[in-house]
Amino acid sequence: MQGNGESEIDAVAPLDQAGPRHVAYCASPRYRSLIPESAAGALILQPEDAELFPGNKILCADPRVAFARIANLLHPPERAVPGCHQSAAIDPSARVSPGASIGPAAIIGADAVIETGVVVGPGVVVGARCVIGSDTRLEARAVVMHDCLIGKRCVISPGAVIGGEGFGYVREQDGHWLKVPQLGRVVIGDDVDVGANTTIDRGALGDTVVGNGVKLDNLIQIAHNVKIGDNTAMAGCVGVAGSAVIGKRCMIAGGVGIMGHITVGDDVEVTAMSFLKGSVEGPGRFSSSLPATAADVWARNVGRLRHFDELARRLRRAEQTIKQILSGGKH
Amino acid sequence: MQGNGESEIDAVAPLDQAGPRHVAYCASPRYRSLIPESAAGALILQPEDAELFPGNKILCADPRVAFARIANLLHPPERAVPGCHQSAAIDPSARVSPGASIGPAAIIGADAVIETGVVVGPGVVVGARCVIGSDTRLEARAVVMHDCLIGKRCVISPGAVIGGEGFGYVREQDGHWLKVPQLGRVVIGDDVDVGANTTIDRGALGDTVVGNGVKLDNLIQIAHNVKIGDNTAMAGCVGVAGSAVIGKRCMIAGGVGIMGHITVGDDVEVTAMSFLKGSVEGPGRFSSSLPATAADVWARNVGRLRHFDELARRLRRAEQTIKQILSGGKH
Amino acid sequence: MQGNGESEIDAVAPLDQAGPRHVAYCASPRYRSLIPESAAGALILQPEDAELFPGNKILCADPRVAFARIANLLHPPERAVPGCHQSAAIDPSARVSPGASIGPAAIIGADAVIETGVVVGPGVVVGARCVIGSDTRLEARAVVMHDCLIGKRCVISPGAVIGGEGFGYVREQDGHWLKVPQLGRVVIGDDVDVGANTTIDRGALGDTVVGNGVKLDNLIQIAHNVKIGDNTAMAGCVGVAGSAVIGKRCMIAGGVGIMGHITVGDDVEVTAMSFLKGSVEGPGRFSSSLPATAADVWARNVGRLRHFDELARRLRRAEQTIKQILSGGKH
Repeated sequence: MQGNGESEIDAVAPLDQAGPRHVAYCASPRYRSLIPESAAGALILQPEDAELFPGNKILCADPRVAFARIANLLHPPERAVPGCHQSAAIDPSARVSPGASIGPAAIIGADAVIETGVVVGPGVVVGARCVIGSDTRLEARAVVMHDCLIGKRCVISPGAVIGGEGFGYVREQDGHWLKVPQLGRVVIGDDVDVGANTTIDRGALGDTVVGNGVKLDNLIQIAHNVKIGDNTAMAGCVGVAGSAVIGKRCMIAGGVGIMGHITVGDDVEVTAMSFLKGSVEGPGRFSSSLPATAADVWARNVGRLRHFDELARRLRRAEQTIKQILSGGKH
Repeated sequence: MQGNGESEIDAVAPLDQAGPRHVAYCASPRYRSLIPESAAGALILQPEDAELFPGNKILCADPRVAFARIANLLHPPERAVPGCHQSAAIDPSARVSPGASIGPAAIIGADAVIETGVVVGPGVVVGARCVIGSDTRLEARAVVMHDCLIGKRCVISPGAVIGGEGFGYVREQDGHWLKVPQLGRVVIGDDVDVGANTTIDRGALGDTVVGNGVKLDNLIQIAHNVKIGDNTAMAGCVGVAGSAVIGKRCMIAGGVGIMGHITVGDDVEVTAMSFLKGSVEGPGRFSSSLPATAADVWARNVGRLRHFDELARRLRRAEQTIKQILSGGKH
Repeated sequence: MQGNGESEIDAVAPLDQAGPRHVAYCASPRYRSLIPESAAGALILQPEDAELFPGNKILCADPRVAFARIANLLHPPERAVPGCHQSAAIDPSARVSPGASIGPAAIIGADAVIETGVVVGPGVVVGARCVIGSDTRLEARAVVMHDCLIGKRCVISPGAVIGGEGFGYVREQDGHWLKVPQLGRVVIGDDVDVGANTTIDRGALGDTVVGNGVKLDNLIQIAHNVKIGDNTAMAGCVGVAGSAVIGKRCMIAGGVGIMGHITVGDDVEVTAMSFLKGSVEGPGRFSSSLPATAADVWARNVGRLRHFDELARRLRRAEQTIKQILSGGKH
């Protein structure tokens, strides 16, 4: 740290908008040119950028981590006042800690346990026999269906549904679907974030399990009996089919589909909009996405794609003919 | 059935976790090795596996169907107590059967009809003039907008939205979008399941229609004026664009996109993450998905893909040259 | 306009179902054959179709726009009665216009501003310090989190979540994710429609911005700090990753993924199920979608695809050999 220790900093701001009471950061050569002009009260920089800024600065190898830590200190989440809003409907058998905050129109089912520091947002539904670990936040209109367990310090975003029934049917000979009762739970570890309108289905017989530190973005579908290892992160619109087992520290980019009943090793990355169809070992990076190009050019190439197999066979024939010509030439 | 008729069975369990009061099943050669070691009170097996298990057993060609039937008997859904929670807001003109159960914070609009045995979960919204058929369950926070019809024995999962406005606009010359009023309804048959946070839009002029026995998983989008035939099933994250007509007994796997205004025959299967762009007749199985491979290998192949058309033309030229060489050689 | 000015028309209807008090339209040669048989009280037609119908008719170049205008006149949205339902939980510091309508179980946070003509539907949550512009409609169970701004005449459909926390983390060396506080807002312009269960995350430092006249369909994910230009439309199931900047009047079809941190020019179209990975200038039409074909044929072609790079190199070698043969032949 270099500079004037008396400076007061209240808030974080982007590099190009920061004022004298703000701290900003630069971690990318892409924005380096903005450093000298920054009016920030302090900057977090990589050591090699130190000379570019005459003001207060914090030098570290990874400015983004330092920035995140400082931002968390300067901007803690709003503290909810403990207590229950009068419009909440709490079953008399539920055990709600006096240190929890239950918002308006929230609904807590029979024998549910709400630990201290939990914030149950407006319109949230917590089913019978759920346990919500301390300091977890259930945001507006999140739903946790009966018997599910959520760990400590989690954030369940607005509209997320934990513990809906898995999609389990068997087909009868006449084509009707017969429902298979979904008797498992969803068990979520500590420090897990679940995005807005994301859905995690309960297990069929065993449980659906989400490990500690997992981060799920918005509009993700996690089917019944999926297991997700610790600290794995998934971006928006991912779909994971039933009974897939996903390792630790994986990074699944947006729009990815993961097949059911496969095993994904630790430290696997899947690029955006890809389809992971078979089991893979980690570490490794996998892809099947196609980047868009001009639609007319694309249409021509796709038209050919249907004849790819034929094309490969024609090439094989051409190669053989060439070989014959060459060997014929030698005679 | 073979074994001791006095044995008592309370619950279903997975093959490898079942105890003496559990019934389990095995339908796949993959798990056959677990049969002899199972401690289950009874097993449901295919006849050819009968000898592997000395205990009580039920033999049948399709153990999964038998298991599902038994599981439904042993684990019926929790019966809701008929009556209306005091915090529910029910319009005085709504006709709610005394045999229906209306949960906390539920909202029932004007002239809605709620038949006997219906369970309206916590926070559910039922719009004006809707009809909810007997024994249907609307789970936590489901929304059914005005004038929609839902049949008997359906399950609408948490957060699902039935009857939102269709995405209908015409573009004016200056680029503004002019809304087209969405005047149709959603009409859902009997025995339909709709997954968590799935959305089914109301029709523009006519109705959006979901046939009997249709099963929709989570986070599916059904656009206005789509028709879905009886007993069709769709897995998570499917999107069906406007006015598509889908046949009976189709199986649409996860992440599939279905183009608008197309017709899909009966008994059509579409594999996961595919894009059904044109009409197809059934029965048939259709695909356009690409399985992920190592990202660096994939990148090389995709780079070539943009030149596929050029490659095909070069092959054609090479073939012609070879032909000329060969015919030249004959001279 | 031609015909009997005394005719009374009450409602719109499809061409083939319209009766004497209905107005219908035909804009496509595909349905032209239905015109002569139509029993509609009036038809909106292109001038070249005028002779096909003897009854009342309105002739114009774009019958769909005329039809939409007339449909909006004949079928205005139901007027909500101003006032607050007794079950709504409104913070005393919120400023709710007497011209607004607040539905049952709605929740309005501290210092929120609800302007005149606003309809807050049943179960809606409006967070602290939000501003909802006049004549905007928040439908059942929509959530607007704290500090977000929504313009005039917008429709936020059921279950949509505006202002959830962005998916912002930095990874610590041990693999844990450290949350980056999401301090920005969502700022939505006038005349914007947001579909059912669509999610728009708040910005990390700056804001997420949705321009005037933007139309978003259902189940769309808009990540933090995305900017969407005026009058852009996106169909269902689109995902836009963080900090993407999208131009005006773009048309993004269903199921498209848009990469983060890219720039998309004005008047860009992206076809359904494509992946826009890099920045593009407009106007232009882009695609990377693959239409489904018979699954067995597809499997053969896809199998080859993994060897595309190898195939291209083999072709190159064959071409070179042919060249050598030809030049050898000249010797």
